[in-house]
Amino acid sequence: MPELRRDPVSGKWVIIAVERAQRPEEFRPQPPVRTAGACAFCRGGEQHTPPEIASVRENGEWRVRVVPNRYPALRVEGDLEKRGEGIYDLMNGIGAHEVIIESPDHILNLTALDDARVADVLWIYKQRLLDLRRDVRLVYGLIFKNVGARAGATVEHSHSQLIATPMVPVRVQDEIDRAREYFDFRGRCLFCDMIRQELAGQVRIVAESPGFVAFEPFAPCSPFETHVMPKRHLSHFEATDDGLLRELAGLLRTTLAKIDRAVGTPAYNYLIHSGPFNAAPMEHYHWHFEIIPRITGVAGFEWGTGFFINPVPPENAAQYLREIRL
Amino acid sequence: MPELRRDPVSGKWVIIAVERAQRPEEFRPQPPVRTAGACAFCRGGEQHTPPEIASVRENGEWRVRVVPNRYPALRVEGDLEKRGEGIYDLMNGIGAHEVIIESPDHILNLTALDDARVADVLWIYKQRLLDLRRDVRLVYGLIFKNVGARAGATVEHSHSQLIATPMVPVRVQDEIDRAREYFDFRGRCLFCDMIRQELAGQVRIVAESPGFVAFEPFAPCSPFETHVMPKRHLSHFEATDDGLLRELAGLLRTTLAKIDRAVGTPAYNYLIHSGPFNAAPMEHYHWHFEIIPRITGVAGFEWGTGFFINPVPPENAAQYLREIRL
Repeated sequence: MPELRRDPVSGKWVIIAVERAQRPEEFRPQPPVRTAGACAFCRGGEQHTPPEIASVRENGEWRVRVVPNRYPALRVEGDLEKRGEGIYDLMNGIGAHEVIIESPDHILNLTALDDARVADVLWIYKQRLLDLRRDVRLVYGLIFKNVGARAGATVEHSHSQLIATPMVPVRVQDEIDRAREYFDFRGRCLFCDMIRQELAGQVRIVAESPGFVAFEPFAPCSPFETHVMPKRHLSHFEATDDGLLRELAGLLRTTLAKIDRAVGTPAYNYLIHSGPFNAAPMEHYHWHFEIIPRITGVAGFEWGTGFFINPVPPENAAQYLREIRL
Repeated sequence: MPELRRDPVSGKWVIIAVERAQRPEEFRPQPPVRTAGACAFCRGGEQHTPPEIASVRENGEWRVRVVPNRYPALRVEGDLEKRGEGIYDLMNGIGAHEVIIESPDHILNLTALDDARVADVLWIYKQRLLDLRRDVRLVYGLIFKNVGARAGATVEHSHSQLIATPMVPVRVQDEIDRAREYFDFRGRCLFCDMIRQELAGQVRIVAESPGFVAFEPFAPCSPFETHVMPKRHLSHFEATDDGLLRELAGLLRTTLAKIDRAVGTPAYNYLIHSGPFNAAPMEHYHWHFEIIPRITGVAGFEWGTGFFINPVPPENAAQYLREIRL
């Protein structure tokens, strides 16, 4: 059973893979992303993955498929057994770790799909979150995607992941706390205000649709970091209407394709920040996608301070992305 | 003039290099660490660096040398001009950015120096912090070191850096706030309690000397992450007695050499977390070194949540490091 431990100084939770512990010599830099050939994520490789949890099917054939991670960071079975060890806090590594396989074809990126297929992927994200939030042990579900070795991908076949945890991750809790302070002070949602200011200014907008906007944040950690959010206030991704998800699919695909074109298919991560499972609809929090190209490394200064150096002003990045014709 | 911008959602400050802005195609992954040859950091290359700020000399020849960074992230000249832009906060990118060249010889790592020379490096860190804290615009000084391309180094000649900023970085402020809460609740320093528990348990200790201890934290973000701290309470690195710095030099060198041996000279960062310039001695904060080997990458899940997955239990890492005979 992995352990969930909290660092008393930073407040960060760490998953310690106690039983999969290996010798130091095994911890040399990871091998590069595996290439095609016998890919368990391809059509025909189904028997090489753990049993399917959910899927989108058409004429009997799957289009999107969700399976448990074969090497899960957390385990579904068991009790949390929260406990102390002197000044330290820990609990059992309970949680869910799932893989969303985005196509039966060996594609390398979500942008290889058409809008309707991207919508299927978003729809299945929603279904999985709706299912996992019924487990009272779990309070947060993070959807994320690693593309390219530099972004932590170990399988090249296009896929996303979902990790559901028994606590709200510290970065999300910080956002919620800060947005709460803003709400208490201003009486408005911080994200709604940001969207209003960005749409009025138009200098950091990358693309928009009737219900969504993609823009470069005012103070992005990475060049070409792009956030996508619904224009109407909504705290939980899984509460998004299916019709809106279909609209989002087009904007997300356009945004990713523009970044690919601008920076030459960089490694990137995207992730969804959304309200915790155990929170009712929140007037002060607003779900959003963060797309983070992994162009510049994270060096000692950034790591040690949470203070980033970004050589590309977001206004320049936005203009560049806006002008790209796909 | 670079800009310091704050992200309203995360609270993170970002240095935006407005005037050095480049075209997207220039932001492909950075070139690898430069190799020897005409190295500006070597003896004889002095005219290729900006003018010297400080040095340690012996028989007229320098042993350690501090110069301004040729491509500074922040500038020393000017006023902060704190201002708002709608809901956003920003100020001019005022600060110091210095390079500490650790030897006139082309060495690749601090461990190539003997203890007395490492002590010179620590002594000059202290002198620079003492000097910069007299500038009322600056409230924090971060000493850090990048070794290897994976850790963000762009020059291979062994060196450290110092960035002094007009605000306390968010990660340090979080630590201070959490340590303050602990102090308010318990009436003791969190770090002193941690040291006491680690010395009693002996399972995560890597090495110790009369005045310092090196140990693996209970919940480390990275395999072989190691912290080094003074056993006696002290909030500010620059208040450390010179005799203690000489003792620290030996322990730091031993610890770095053990990590090198265990993991095969990995890329790594180290950094010093210390009290802010504008704070009197603090009974609730305790300065420390964090040594972070960059073995596992930081993938989407970690980035998005501040929630880390570590495949090496710190107890195993500590045992392994303890058993290494240098």
